[in-house]
Amino acid sequence: MQSLMKRFTGCLFILFLSTNCFAQFTDYVNPFIGSANFGTTNPGALVPRGMVSVSPFNVSGSDLNTYDKDTRWWSAPYAFNNVYLTGFSHVNLSGVGCPELGVILLMPTTGQVNADPKIYGSIMENQQANPGYYRTDLKKYGIIAEMSASKRTGISRYTFPKGESHILLNMGLGLTNESGAKVRIVNNREIEGSRMTGSFCYNAGSERPVYFVARFSKAAESFGVWKKMPAMQAESAWSDTDGQIKYYQNYTPEMCGDEVGAYFTFSTEEKEQILVEVGVSYVSIANARLNLDMESNHFDFEKTKQEATTQWNDVLSRVKVEGGTKDQKTIFYTALYHTQIHPNIINDANGQYPAMGSFEIRENTKHDRYSVFSLWDTYRNFHPLMSLLYPAEQLDMMRSMIDMYKESGWLPKWELNSKETHVMEGDPAIPVIVDAYLRGLTDFDVEAAYQAMFKSATTEGKNNKLRPDIDSYLEKGFVPLKEEFDNSVSHALEYYIADWNLAQFAKALHKKDDYKKFLKQSLAYKAYFDKDFGMLRPRLEDGSFLNDFNPRQGENFEACPGFHEGTAWQYTFCVPHDIKGLSKLMGGKQKFVHKLQKVFDDNLFDMANEPDIHYPYLFTYFKGEEWRTQKEVHRLIDTYFKNAPDGIPGNDDCGTLSSWIVYSMMGMYPVCPGNMNYALTSPVFDKISIQLDPEFYPGKTLEIITHRNSPEEIYINEVKRNGKTLNRLFLNHADITKGGKIEFQLKAHHK
Amino acid sequence: MQSLMKRFTGCLFILFLSTNCFAQFTDYVNPFIGSANFGTTNPGALVPRGMVSVSPFNVSGSDLNTYDKDTRWWSAPYAFNNVYLTGFSHVNLSGVGCPELGVILLMPTTGQVNADPKIYGSIMENQQANPGYYRTDLKKYGIIAEMSASKRTGISRYTFPKGESHILLNMGLGLTNESGAKVRIVNNREIEGSRMTGSFCYNAGSERPVYFVARFSKAAESFGVWKKMPAMQAESAWSDTDGQIKYYQNYTPEMCGDEVGAYFTFSTEEKEQILVEVGVSYVSIANARLNLDMESNHFDFEKTKQEATTQWNDVLSRVKVEGGTKDQKTIFYTALYHTQIHPNIINDANGQYPAMGSFEIRENTKHDRYSVFSLWDTYRNFHPLMSLLYPAEQLDMMRSMIDMYKESGWLPKWELNSKETHVMEGDPAIPVIVDAYLRGLTDFDVEAAYQAMFKSATTEGKNNKLRPDIDSYLEKGFVPLKEEFDNSVSHALEYYIADWNLAQFAKALHKKDDYKKFLKQSLAYKAYFDKDFGMLRPRLEDGSFLNDFNPRQGENFEACPGFHEGTAWQYTFCVPHDIKGLSKLMGGKQKFVHKLQKVFDDNLFDMANEPDIHYPYLFTYFKGEEWRTQKEVHRLIDTYFKNAPDGIPGNDDCGTLSSWIVYSMMGMYPVCPGNMNYALTSPVFDKISIQLDPEFYPGKTLEIITHRNSPEEIYINEVKRNGKTLNRLFLNHADITKGGKIEFQLKAHHK
Repeated sequence: MQSLMKRFTGCLFILFLSTNCFAQFTDYVNPFIGSANFGTTNPGALVPRGMVSVSPFNVSGSDLNTYDKDTRWWSAPYAFNNVYLTGFSHVNLSGVGCPELGVILLMPTTGQVNADPKIYGSIMENQQANPGYYRTDLKKYGIIAEMSASKRTGISRYTFPKGESHILLNMGLGLTNESGAKVRIVNNREIEGSRMTGSFCYNAGSERPVYFVARFSKAAESFGVWKKMPAMQAESAWSDTDGQIKYYQNYTPEMCGDEVGAYFTFSTEEKEQILVEVGVSYVSIANARLNLDMESNHFDFEKTKQEATTQWNDVLSRVKVEGGTKDQKTIFYTALYHTQIHPNIINDANGQYPAMGSFEIRENTKHDRYSVFSLWDTYRNFHPLMSLLYPAEQLDMMRSMIDMYKESGWLPKWELNSKETHVMEGDPAIPVIVDAYLRGLTDFDVEAAYQAMFKSATTEGKNNKLRPDIDSYLEKGFVPLKEEFDNSVSHALEYYIADWNLAQFAKALHKKDDYKKFLKQSLAYKAYFDKDFGMLRPRLEDGSFLNDFNPRQGENFEACPGFHEGTAWQYTFCVPHDIKGLSKLMGGKQKFVHKLQKVFDDNLFDMANEPDIHYPYLFTYFKGEEWRTQKEVHRLIDTYFKNAPDGIPGNDDCGTLSSWIVYSMMGMYPVCPGNMNYALTSPVFDKISIQLDPEFYPGKTLEIITHRNSPEEIYINEVKRNGKTLNRLFLNHADITKGGKIEFQLKAHHK
Repeated sequence: MQSLMKRFTGCLFILFLSTNCFAQFTDYVNPFIGSANFGTTNPGALVPRGMVSVSPFNVSGSDLNTYDKDTRWWSAPYAFNNVYLTGFSHVNLSGVGCPELGVILLMPTTGQVNADPKIYGSIMENQQANPGYYRTDLKKYGIIAEMSASKRTGISRYTFPKGESHILLNMGLGLTNESGAKVRIVNNREIEGSRMTGSFCYNAGSERPVYFVARFSKAAESFGVWKKMPAMQAESAWSDTDGQIKYYQNYTPEMCGDEVGAYFTFSTEEKEQILVEVGVSYVSIANARLNLDMESNHFDFEKTKQEATTQWNDVLSRVKVEGGTKDQKTIFYTALYHTQIHPNIINDANGQYPAMGSFEIRENTKHDRYSVFSLWDTYRNFHPLMSLLYPAEQLDMMRSMIDMYKESGWLPKWELNSKETHVMEGDPAIPVIVDAYLRGLTDFDVEAAYQAMFKSATTEGKNNKLRPDIDSYLEKGFVPLKEEFDNSVSHALEYYIADWNLAQFAKALHKKDDYKKFLKQSLAYKAYFDKDFGMLRPRLEDGSFLNDFNPRQGENFEACPGFHEGTAWQYTFCVPHDIKGLSKLMGGKQKFVHKLQKVFDDNLFDMANEPDIHYPYLFTYFKGEEWRTQKEVHRLIDTYFKNAPDGIPGNDDCGTLSSWIVYSMMGMYPVCPGNMNYALTSPVFDKISIQLDPEFYPGKTLEIITHRNSPEEIYINEVKRNGKTLNRLFLNHADITKGGKIEFQLKAHHK
């Protein structure tokens, strides 16, 4: 009865507070999408860009699981195909290809206390997830576990059977072997501590502790901590805890160690609910407690869940789609949902955050500090999408990036919790910032940004943290292959696109010399063009092309000379700033189109990685060939994106694949960051209404209307903007953000 | 030149401050005595009853060592016969048979930083130790390491060669597998942290963190922390630190884990000295820092060393011996030195200390809080010796014990760092306190003490923490053998002596009924007397004696029914409160003396353990047989006590064997705690001057003069007190503490 009342109150709450009550956008989000097939998302509960997510952790401790973090490269706390759960982790990455975080695990159990995940874990049943909410049954115990979150806290509600029940806090588990934690039981309702994180991508560099405070809705009747004891030859004869987990009842000092944790024991009635709220901080335990104090709803689970739902509905309501199937809507809104996870805030409620590249604590109460920038991925489409739909957040992300430069001397590349992980290559902060600047997001320290970009684009020598091979790049115009499997061409291709963006920035800032210089650099990619193959091909120090060139080498993540995570095929068209120039090199439009079509026809395309994700839109650059874009995009959407756990073709890469599908289903794509033209394709939905942010854009709403007689009509017959027919299938950002109406008239055949 | 000047200043300092300059008592201390042959002392630097000792730690990491803590029961940080050093530990136990502590290790190295003890360790050479000072060369590095201490701090001085030098702080090593530590680099001259301790005797119960702050005399040029990474199947393919030590340069947050540490790197000139001061606390890091601030001499090593020497000279000067060989003097003063190590203070400079049996913090600025009470050992002779020579300290020990009762509800048995370890048996706090009370140390909470003793002597049931088998003891008068190898007789024998003491206390407090009751209980030992063997023999629940009784079973620590760490032979005479009664049971003086002589003649005596250490003095109870005491004591001194590392026959047991030799060489022994009569034997020295504490005793000095013509004269012809011949070879505590002169006239033959 109480539960029904609560649900009723919740509904009233929506009716009063939200004008979007009709549109439960969150109903079209399936958080399980991407949680199989290496999408590496998880169905955990969180709010948009929250520091905390509470995710089921089921990748350890049992042969019942298909994937085990300890036996293979594994980068997510959750795998949809796994069944054996060992807890719920409170800081997690979503859609990332490298392991990290997945720590601070809570786990409810019953019976005898046992802290060994191999023993205390349980089969999961009846999982359910909505934005801001996750639940599962723990079969072994008859416990229902539900969770929700605020920005910096997680809340869990456990419904226990009658008997002796426990809540375990396991600080030993995590995705990497970066371990070490401390716990301190404050009293019978509170515990605090810290956990080491790091070893992102199994590399050094991202190490930093995360701090927490956890509070229970009910005072524990007993409690204690545990520690896995090291094995010792002498001990084995004498100590019954040698190499075992040792329990320390009533132990209240700090307990430090590799595999430590704490248990709180309660005598529960049938269906008794006990709640836990966990505050997190990357600054200190004091800040974790502050975050908890500021954001706690005092164990009101329904209120926290409702607030999370409201936040998600608000965020998702920026785009309203009509028409299309429920699956298509779900694919769309889940993708949009996945763009709202990273970058996430890392500042505490008081504005404090860890400075980039050090352990200093800074404070900024003017804007949120964002973290988790997978920029090699996200510069391509994610940040343009953010500029269009969420310009305020995008601006704060750029401000965060520029603050990182001020703190560490360099813009970020792959930033994680205020550490540069140096993962992937290039200088991707440049296109992110320049693209947004050109879109009108200019309220940041422009001079500092330019200075930062100029520094990485011009600083010679080994101390250039972003462009390690800048010397040969500047000297020769390209990066020669120096080691068998170096990523020299990939490096250079990233520098070209960055320099082209920097040129646009210089131009906008009336720095004519710089404009010319960087524009020229950006076009030096041509040095890699090998006429024999009609492709980009690695060159050696002496200027010659690499012998034994196999353009397909690099498929399926095999090592490849010159190219990183891809083949020459997947990189050759990766000069989006000079498609016409590349076409000219290749011998003109026909040859370009033929070659590009071959990529799709011969299965040379990789939908699961970034270097080629703009490929299908390149046909649109050539009059009369636009239908190929429409056809291929349509096919790729249908083939690779599903309303199912395996509905993302590979690592979501912090929302990059999700941004691709959001854009593509809306019928537009930002082929080249820094270039304000969107290439158009046929939208999936009949009507798409984009709410434009009045603080940034003159228009209020952009409506995209699609006229078609059947789903088979996938080809564009005509596009009108405010009644006027476009003669090219491109639309400029400035025009789009004026709002108004874009109408697509589709047809069944491209001719 | 500077060094010479310092030495000169040091000498002046002594001349001015110490009236005992003529007698460098410390010259007669050899801290290596007891560091082989399982004496389990160590040569580390410390001040009397200091919380900190800085000991070489050489029991790990190399096959070059004879004894390795990880491959056998090992209870000391140091073994004289070992050669491979892995650091200098800052909290240590001395003369204890169970492993514990041996943590917070500093180690100077040179060259490439390496934190693996198997690699960074060094052969030791040119060791030297004096009270408050230890030094060794580290052969591998050409480093001289010297150390000294104050009560709560250690100071180390490392003399480096020219080049890159390091000081490692290894928090992973320790004597038990109780591990887990945290370190936090505060700045380039300071580090703080904590280290878990516990698993004393490989049991649970004594767990508690110890906190520290370390400061360097020179700012480090670089620094970092390390952590041994757990091994992970997946990682092994990708991470180069998997299962290895990972170094975190410039890492300044807390680093927690099982095997963590920190390094500080310096560029050193030839013979450059860098000093480290380490403050320790069992309360908090803040208190460790306070202790360091209060006691530091600001890296003045010579001053700290000199202060330590002065403290030791002061303490040792309570007894001045003349005559005897240098070896004999050294045996004597080293033993006296070993009585000044435990119990040690555990309170911080502000009076704070951890409460007994909990993690509460208490504060007491009126008296020192003592810890490390090995009472089953020390009640026998150590505390009577402290009452005689150091009554102020003994009183504070008693006050500490009574405070433990107030904090935890029970008097201590084997207390370690404010935890009851429940090691060995009995109720030994009773004889310690009663004995001292009867000697005139009465300024403590007598009522609380009586209440505490009454509680453990009368509380029935399993909740009696000191007397787990009290029910059958009270019901039957003895403890029956219930399991094959239980220690039932040993338990009961301890209860008898405790109850006899409690009876004396009741009598002194005019509690006549209690006196009668406990006196009666104390004599119930007779139930164990088996006329067939003329010995104490285990009895079963049905009252019958144990079958298959072998009075020699239990030798060499083999398991034995009824007796703990000993044989029936070694326990049969362990009723010192009723020697006459036992004699009567045995059939009179002749049979008693015959049986007792057999113990010595047939090698049934164990000099290395406590139950029988009073045996040689029992002959003195029988007129005409006293010469046997003189003979056996003389023989035992000569046989078992040497000025050599193996100069203590077994675990010193926190000064118990040392107290035996101190008393025995002075010609007197307190056969039964609570009985104020000392049994006399022939002194080793020609003149012994005991300074009596005027706050407690009427006399100022007691002089013991021994007249003999040759060392062969070991038998007593006559003893005079202040010119008056004694007619029995006993002297009462009250008479002794009046001071005056006792003269022994010796002879060569006992007849």
